[in-house]
Amino acid sequence: MLNNANLKNIAPKDFRQKVRQGEWGEPTANVCFGYAQANLVIVPKDMAFEFFLFCLRNWMACPVIDATQAGSPHPSLVAPEADLRTDLPVYRVFRNGKLADEPTDITGYWRDDLVCFLLGCINTIDWAFRVAGIKFRRLGAFTSNIECVQAGRFSGPMAVSLRLFKGTESLIRAIQISSRFPNAHGVPVHIGDPAAIGISDICHSDFVPHANAAPQQPDETAVFWGCGITVELAALRAKLPLMITHKAGHMFVTDLLAGEFAIL
Amino acid sequence: MLNNANLKNIAPKDFRQKVRQGEWGEPTANVCFGYAQANLVIVPKDMAFEFFLFCLRNWMACPVIDATQAGSPHPSLVAPEADLRTDLPVYRVFRNGKLADEPTDITGYWRDDLVCFLLGCINTIDWAFRVAGIKFRRLGAFTSNIECVQAGRFSGPMAVSLRLFKGTESLIRAIQISSRFPNAHGVPVHIGDPAAIGISDICHSDFVPHANAAPQQPDETAVFWGCGITVELAALRAKLPLMITHKAGHMFVTDLLAGEFAIL
Repeated sequence: MLNNANLKNIAPKDFRQKVRQGEWGEPTANVCFGYAQANLVIVPKDMAFEFFLFCLRNWMACPVIDATQAGSPHPSLVAPEADLRTDLPVYRVFRNGKLADEPTDITGYWRDDLVCFLLGCINTIDWAFRVAGIKFRRLGAFTSNIECVQAGRFSGPMAVSLRLFKGTESLIRAIQISSRFPNAHGVPVHIGDPAAIGISDICHSDFVPHANAAPQQPDETAVFWGCGITVELAALRAKLPLMITHKAGHMFVTDLLAGEFAIL
Repeated sequence: MLNNANLKNIAPKDFRQKVRQGEWGEPTANVCFGYAQANLVIVPKDMAFEFFLFCLRNWMACPVIDATQAGSPHPSLVAPEADLRTDLPVYRVFRNGKLADEPTDITGYWRDDLVCFLLGCINTIDWAFRVAGIKFRRLGAFTSNIECVQAGRFSGPMAVSLRLFKGTESLIRAIQISSRFPNAHGVPVHIGDPAAIGISDICHSDFVPHANAAPQQPDETAVFWGCGITVELAALRAKLPLMITHKAGHMFVTDLLAGEFAIL
């Protein structure tokens, strides 16, 4: 049976094939060690430039790493052989700002005027933390009170992901290492008191619940990065006739190693 | 009388005002020391997404640092008070792929459906080289034989800018420092033999002639970066009814310091 352990070391191409065949419908945080993962957003072409503007203005939450021409589901820069309609474990389909479906395949929703955006994902940086031997705890994602810069119909609060780091040295290394990956959210958006960005309880993620999130310890510092879930929050407000995203945590796995995304 | 020397230390806002009033129509390489400069590209909104795709696929030549909503000439991220119709020294207006005008003001061409893109500029990195005490010679820009990745109507060869560095240490520092600025072309696209990327005579720039470009010395290494002139070459091929760029070397000066663009 497939699990995180035996998916950790397979190639992205093989993992995507398993997803396509319906063999894996779970989160991707620990699959394909070392490969960059991505958030997916699909909008009709007539909204594509406006969505790009939203990403540009809020790049810490929405760094665009690839985009397709209308009608093409193949991300030519990061995984040209992949099919974005079938290769993610779970999708979310929004109609007029409401969640309408949560399918494992969106072939039935596909249209010739749809444009796919792939946004960098913090999972990419997690590989770099692990390679550097940095110990940290992931405590999921939250809705912050940081307001995104609006672009046309796209607006909303910034979702953030939280990691706890023990001691000053690992905190400094975390800032250094994440800064090397501007296309995977890059530098933190906040460090310290969660309440300062509107988060009251870090033990209960707003999106990806962690059953046993132990309380923050005195020697742990909370570090927040922009999170691709921001797009899902924007989708609810934008009320487009059709907008499709991945389900939080169920990312697209690219053919590129994290190191290929790094600056220096 | 205004010259490079007395424009070196004025604020971007003041420099732009002088440009707007017609007091400066020359290149911007040495004005407003330390501030990031940008290439300008204006296309009709119905081509904006396709142009963004071209930039994404050729980011080393065309890194997008700001874009405006249709009809707005104000770059909200990098200089919200500026007016892109008047604040650059010289523009180039292309109609159906032909240079139609070279005005110092494009107010007369403005339409409500025009979208402005600002692309990072290597001048930004030059400040960082100078602050680091690195000696180099600028030898202008050239058309290389590196073919850009096509996006719809946008295609063409990549333009590159050339700098000569003396000795190994300055070469290594140049790679390190430029890599910190992915939004200003970042890492070099080629190092060494100019002929390898189709350039036969580095003493005669294809775009910004240097009167006294001395031949390359044995201890100098040629280092090439992607260049925003790539967009002008693409404009000639795209044959859009209307496309406006700055004239090579006559850049937009932003309100942001080069250091604010740096990763780390």
